[in-house]
This record gives sequence, structure tokens and C-alpha cells, in this order.
Amino acid sequence: MLFIVGLGLGSPDDITLRGLNALKTCSRIFLETYTSLMTELDLDDGTSGKLHLAKTLNLDESSIVLADRTMMEQTCERDILSHAFENNIAILVVGDPFAATTHHDMILRAREKGIKVEVIHNASILTAVGATGLQLYRFGETVSLCFWTDTWKPTSAFEKVMKNFEAGLHTLCLLDIKVKEQTVENMMRGNKIFEPPRFMTAHEAASQICESIEILNESEENACDLTPSSICVAVARLGSKDQIIKCCSLADMCNADVGRPLHSLIIPANLHELEQEYLYFFKAQIK
Amino acid sequence: MLFIVGLGLGSPDDITLRGLNALKTCSRIFLETYTSLMTELDLDDGTSGKLHLAKTLNLDESSIVLADRTMMEQTCERDILSHAFENNIAILVVGDPFAATTHHDMILRAREKGIKVEVIHNASILTAVGATGLQLYRFGETVSLCFWTDTWKPTSAFEKVMKNFEAGLHTLCLLDIKVKEQTVENMMRGNKIFEPPRFMTAHEAASQICESIEILNESEENACDLTPSSICVAVARLGSKDQIIKCCSLADMCNADVGRPLHSLIIPANLHELEQEYLYFFKAQIK
Repeated sequence: MLFIVGLGLGSPDDITLRGLNALKTCSRIFLETYTSLMTELDLDDGTSGKLHLAKTLNLDESSIVLADRTMMEQTCERDILSHAFENNIAILVVGDPFAATTHHDMILRAREKGIKVEVIHNASILTAVGATGLQLYRFGETVSLCFWTDTWKPTSAFEKVMKNFEAGLHTLCLLDIKVKEQTVENMMRGNKIFEPPRFMTAHEAASQICESIEILNESEENACDLTPSSICVAVARLGSKDQIIKCCSLADMCNADVGRPLHSLIIPANLHELEQEYLYFFKAQIK
Repeated sequence: MLFIVGLGLGSPDDITLRGLNALKTCSRIFLETYTSLMTELDLDDGTSGKLHLAKTLNLDESSIVLADRTMMEQTCERDILSHAFENNIAILVVGDPFAATTHHDMILRAREKGIKVEVIHNASILTAVGATGLQLYRFGETVSLCFWTDTWKPTSAFEKVMKNFEAGLHTLCLLDIKVKEQTVENMMRGNKIFEPPRFMTAHEAASQICESIEILNESEENACDLTPSSICVAVARLGSKDQIIKCCSLADMCNADVGRPLHSLIIPANLHELEQEYLYFFKAQIK
């Protein structure tokens, strides 16, 4: 049997009782490390998270295996699912298991093989952003901002932000995470050398959005109502003891520091009265 | 100090370790009973949920107080917040604490009084609907369907469904819950007599949507692409052991029975390939 267990916002004690009870029946636990990471830790490839998890939840450390993107997407049948016929196994996922397509794909493969699957839900950034005071039902489509390069600066995500904004809906921007990435050179040579992990910050995201506004304003037909003076809200390490919520203009956010990852950025549409009152509290909050 | 603790999808063991640890420091625990209810129980005013919760989590039953709408919105300062100056107290909320405006309002009032607030997040129906295979980032604005009466049949919620549909976005419809409602007569006379609880079912929601389609099609300018043959997805008791996910046409859903509350209904937009493959599984699932 395969359990897919949400770990919530990333601290070991964010797990649910049901989730913990399931883990205790498992001979192997795969800690998925590429769609998100546990936030109360030094951010590495997941090793420190694994140790912290084993210690806090009193689990056998040797039963926990880090599952990177390759294992989750390419070798999962051999490395993960093959163990689920004889024993219970679990895949532990930061957030709710269904926030990423990867886990749907895993469930489909398990079902094809006749493996029973049980999903144990948990908190996700997608709803925890309610902590900003912005009403969840007023959020439009969620977008993912990816790292730009010197020659590749897509504005498609920002166009969705504009579309939401014009429809009076807030946008949650999830920010890029690069863990175990290889340079093209190392990939071509087959060198298993990985770049240091990178996590997009709220100020990098705000800069990218300001630049997108500029690019789109150059073509008149796309001129948009969002400007660098529009407000935005950064959330950092949401749900952890040292979470920060900061509300300021996009221009000011370009120079803001909200501390360690993980960050997200919200572009609110026009605010209702209660939202305004609630957000005002975070205007005063300075790190 | 005030903890606002999410209870997740409604079974006592859906609570997080952090949430349980917080409850253990509290002299009073208010179980909020009007924005949602624990699903693994007989559905009453919350009493059976309270007993089940106390037993499963080994909490002192006499420390748990049911908090209905009146207490949460009108008498909260006297009945709830006044206890938070000297002691730790908690408000327990099914789902994530921020899914409803009520809890934002409570936090604002607490802050005004200088009471420290800590929020402990949990799973919410808003993300758990990922269990259907529909991608969460493809959901548009969430809508709430309320019970119609013979003379009051608003189509405003359905108009939002159409707007999402036309923009290629799925819609999650949350269905009305009526707990401790009074008839107008009893209210006028000041009789504290409450009607039996009512929970809108997926088939009632589907009927309401089919009727909305008819009403809007009568005025040509609002003719919509959704028809009674469009597919919809019902989720019942999501996250519990006996959850049901059912996918069929709106017309067929009008006659479907997915069992006990709570239900939600999703109107998907055009499906991606993986979504289609995943949903197909639930077409076969019959109660």
C-alpha cells in the first residue's frame, strides 16, 4: 500500500496525527524534495530535513529516503512503487499532496499496478495565504514565476496576473525553486555535479514583475493597470514560527529583505474593507 | 493568548501535532460549528463532534465549548476573547482557519485588545479538491451556492461559474450549510427554537445549476456554453475514509446520491490530458 502524506507548511510537527500513524506502519518513507522543502531548516538537498524529521517524529532515520525529481518522475516504478506490493510505503510531500501534477502522475501509475493508494491531506500555501487577510475566494488562477535568464524573459505568467487583476481577482505567485540542477555542460558530459540550490526571493519576483510591466507597456495594446506603485504582499516561511508578511509597493518590494526562503508574492486586486484593515497591520511589520 | 487551530478535513486525527500541542496548553477550547462541521459524525449542532474530539484526542470534555454563529460574531468579546488575557484559549475550526472571513474578523478584534494570536494551518477543501485530479492552479474564483426559496432564485453565483468556464478555469462550488437557523416567525417572537440542520447536496446543487442555465438562456445575450450535458464532479466527505468522488453530466448528477454530507460540486472547464485520465477513474466509481 502507498500513502501519500502531506507535511503541511514544512515543520515536522505540522504533520497530522493520521499522517504520523500511517508513517509508523511503513517500511520505507520517501521524502520528496523537489516541489517544495521543509522551511525550518538549512536549505540543502533535503538531508538536514530528513534528520530533523526522523528525530522529531521518532522515526527510524535509515527508513527515510530522499526522492529527487529523477526518482519521482523517471525511476519511480523501480525505486518507489516496487516496494509497495509487499509492504506499506509512504511518500511525504511538503504542503498538500495535490498541489503538484507529479503526485497525480504517481497515483495513476500506482493504480495501474493495482497498488492501493491513500492520500492524507494537509495545509498548503494555496490556502495558508489567507493569513495575509486577503479572501481566498477572491484569488484567481495561481501562477508560477520561473527564473529568467539573460536571453529568456517570458511574460506569460505576468499576463495571467494582469488578467486576474482586471477581473478583480488576487494572484498568488509561486516562486521558482532549483534543487539539484545541472549546468548544460555537466549534463552533456554526464557529470553528476549539481549547482547549489536556488530559491527565488520576493524581491527578485517583484523586480521581474516590474520589468514585465515595462516590456508590456512598450506595446501599447497591452498597456496595463498595474504599475510599480501598485501594492503587493510578500509571505516568507508561512506557517513557521518566524513567518513574515510584508505589504508595500512593487517598487519598494524590489529592495525588501524578508529573510530566508521559501517566499511567495501576492498581487492583490482592489481590496475590500476588511482586507484593507487586515493588510494594514502588515504595512507596519518590518523585519 | 489565542490559538486558532485548523482541524483539517474533519476527523479528530486530522489535527496536526502542533495543533494538538497547542490545545493541551489551553484552559478553554471553542469548537466553531457554523462555517463547517466534522464529517465522520452524525450531523447535529456539534455536540457529537465535541464528544468524539474529546475522546479521540484525550481532552477534557468540559473544557470544550461549542461556538455557534451568534457566539463567533456577536458575543465573541465577552464569551471568547475575555478568557484569553489570563490563559491560553483556542478556537478550533474545521478546514483551514482562513477559509472564512469570520476568523479574520476574530483576529482583528483580538489584536485590538492586545491579545497575542497564533494560527495553526491545516488542510482545506479548497486544496483537497486536488483529489479529483483537477489541477489546482486551473481553478478560478470559488463560489458559494445558497439554498433557493420559491421566490428567491439568484443566479449571481452561477454567473461566476460561467465566467470561469469561459476563461478556461474550473469552479469549486461550496454548498450551503444551515445550522441553528430560525424561522422568521420564531425569530420575531424571540423563540429560541431552531430548525433541523440542512446541508445542500451535490444533486441539489446540480439541479440549481441546470435551472440557472435555463433562466439565463431565456435572455439571449447571456446564452452560455454550459449545458445539462456538461460534466461536473461531486466530492462527498472529502478526506474521510468513505469519501466519494463522482464524475458525470450535470443532468445525471441531479439524480445522483453520494451519501451523507458534506458535499461540494466542481464545474470543470476543458480538461487537460492528465486531468481527463485521472477523472476517468471516477466515472466508473459508483456508490
